[in-house]
Amino acid sequence: MSILVVGSVAYDDIITPFASRQRALGGSAIYFSLAAQHFTPISMVAVIGDDFKQSDMRLLESHRIDTTGLIRESGPCFYWKGEYLGNWNDRITHATHLNVFEHFNPVIPHDYRKAEIVFLGNIAPELQNKVLDQVEHPRIVALDTMNYWISHAKEALIETLRRVNILIVNDSEARLLSGEQSIIEAARTIRAMGPTILCIKRGEHGALLWYDDQVFVAPAYPMCEVVDPTGAGDSFAGGFLGYLARQKLDIHALRRAVVHGSVMGSFTVESFSVDRLAAIGTDDVNKRYQAFVDMTHFDR
Amino acid sequence: MSILVVGSVAYDDIITPFASRQRALGGSAIYFSLAAQHFTPISMVAVIGDDFKQSDMRLLESHRIDTTGLIRESGPCFYWKGEYLGNWNDRITHATHLNVFEHFNPVIPHDYRKAEIVFLGNIAPELQNKVLDQVEHPRIVALDTMNYWISHAKEALIETLRRVNILIVNDSEARLLSGEQSIIEAARTIRAMGPTILCIKRGEHGALLWYDDQVFVAPAYPMCEVVDPTGAGDSFAGGFLGYLARQKLDIHALRRAVVHGSVMGSFTVESFSVDRLAAIGTDDVNKRYQAFVDMTHFDR
Repeated sequence: MSILVVGSVAYDDIITPFASRQRALGGSAIYFSLAAQHFTPISMVAVIGDDFKQSDMRLLESHRIDTTGLIRESGPCFYWKGEYLGNWNDRITHATHLNVFEHFNPVIPHDYRKAEIVFLGNIAPELQNKVLDQVEHPRIVALDTMNYWISHAKEALIETLRRVNILIVNDSEARLLSGEQSIIEAARTIRAMGPTILCIKRGEHGALLWYDDQVFVAPAYPMCEVVDPTGAGDSFAGGFLGYLARQKLDIHALRRAVVHGSVMGSFTVESFSVDRLAAIGTDDVNKRYQAFVDMTHFDR
Repeated sequence: MSILVVGSVAYDDIITPFASRQRALGGSAIYFSLAAQHFTPISMVAVIGDDFKQSDMRLLESHRIDTTGLIRESGPCFYWKGEYLGNWNDRITHATHLNVFEHFNPVIPHDYRKAEIVFLGNIAPELQNKVLDQVEHPRIVALDTMNYWISHAKEALIETLRRVNILIVNDSEARLLSGEQSIIEAARTIRAMGPTILCIKRGEHGALLWYDDQVFVAPAYPMCEVVDPTGAGDSFAGGFLGYLARQKLDIHALRRAVVHGSVMGSFTVESFSVDRLAAIGTDDVNKRYQAFVDMTHFDR
């Protein structure tokens, strides 16, 4: 079944210790969708500017991504300029221009409202809530957020979280949201807010997942060379939720979903923008999943 | 079969964000031995001061640790005073007094010279080399080192590494030793120096192991509460090598050894000094190994 994703579409200027790229196609909806479409069709809702390239539109459409829900407004696309420092762990934002994103009001096309799986990308919690008001009986609602919303719209976020099954955040976001330093305490606090399934990403250090009384711990896929980490988290979410779309929702599927998330994130960081993510095929995904199995398996 | 370990015995003053402990029994040989003795008997060679407590001697002897190789000199034991900061990742050394350790000359008792497994704890590479001159035909030689020796005694260290099968270091040490920023490049460079088996520890983020053309990646055991991280790395080495002592040296045993290393490190950080490490039994070790299996397993 297809996934409804609501998020951002952006053009990013990115500087890394080794290279830079201007006007790189990015945004949470883009990375999520191009990762998830390896597993299931995607319906995307987002706002684009009048500078959104035809070639980028064709890229989406050629990847099982339904773009009916893209609203074109006059003005430029969301713009972010960021720089990664030598150790990749520190990121400086040089500029954020909301542009057409500033007055984004997500309207879910009629055909999308019966979506069984919804991914609320990292946008204002109030908008995420509005999306949920428009979908009928979703089986799975997953949400991503960031420090900015946790600090500036906590009440709306907590209200939205009550309607969410799966929260996917990174460790610093989990600490900020819960007010707990220990990641295990943080998980306990957050799950009491609503999401029964919690996935905490730790970048190059892997991910943790909580479901029922179980914790699953996965290392990251070890990377030989990182070109650009932008979008790794959204690609993780795309791999995770995309994989789940065709599975029975149980702990075994959730564990494999975490690994598929890591796999998709690992492709994204191998190039600027979505270059690698859009170039790989199902074979590449399966091969890397198998490599992940081989690298992590040990006997009981 | 028993393991010959050569390393330090210390009394540490430790300050954490939450508590402090004075004159805590520590040192690489102590942590290693108390972790490894859960799997196999240990023969320990180290220098102790005349302040080494009778109760600490009894603690070792009651844990299958042969102390014939402990040399008592006049003066105090090695002393380290350190402080951990709020995030546990930064550690400040307030004082290091070598004391009796300054003129430590490891003499391997005659009965230990046929040791099949040797662990060279974190001491001067020149002394590690001297130890190897005295053992006859070791089947496995494992070595730990630290940034200080990599920076100040690199030549002697590289000479020693030629005689070593297994190197166990943390990620910053691997980067410094190899001059490579990427951990995968670092591993390639280091293995060309001699050790066919390389284990790189990443603290709370797990460990990697290289053997033949294989890489094994393990997450760390997720900790609810860390009391004192001192000795976690040496305890990891003790669990790793202790487990290997009774196994055929192949990739399957090495993978399980990494997990046993993580398990032993996770016990150590639950208390100051060796309190927890010395209190647990085989059942606790097996239970946590099984918990580790349960938390990391996923289907192919």
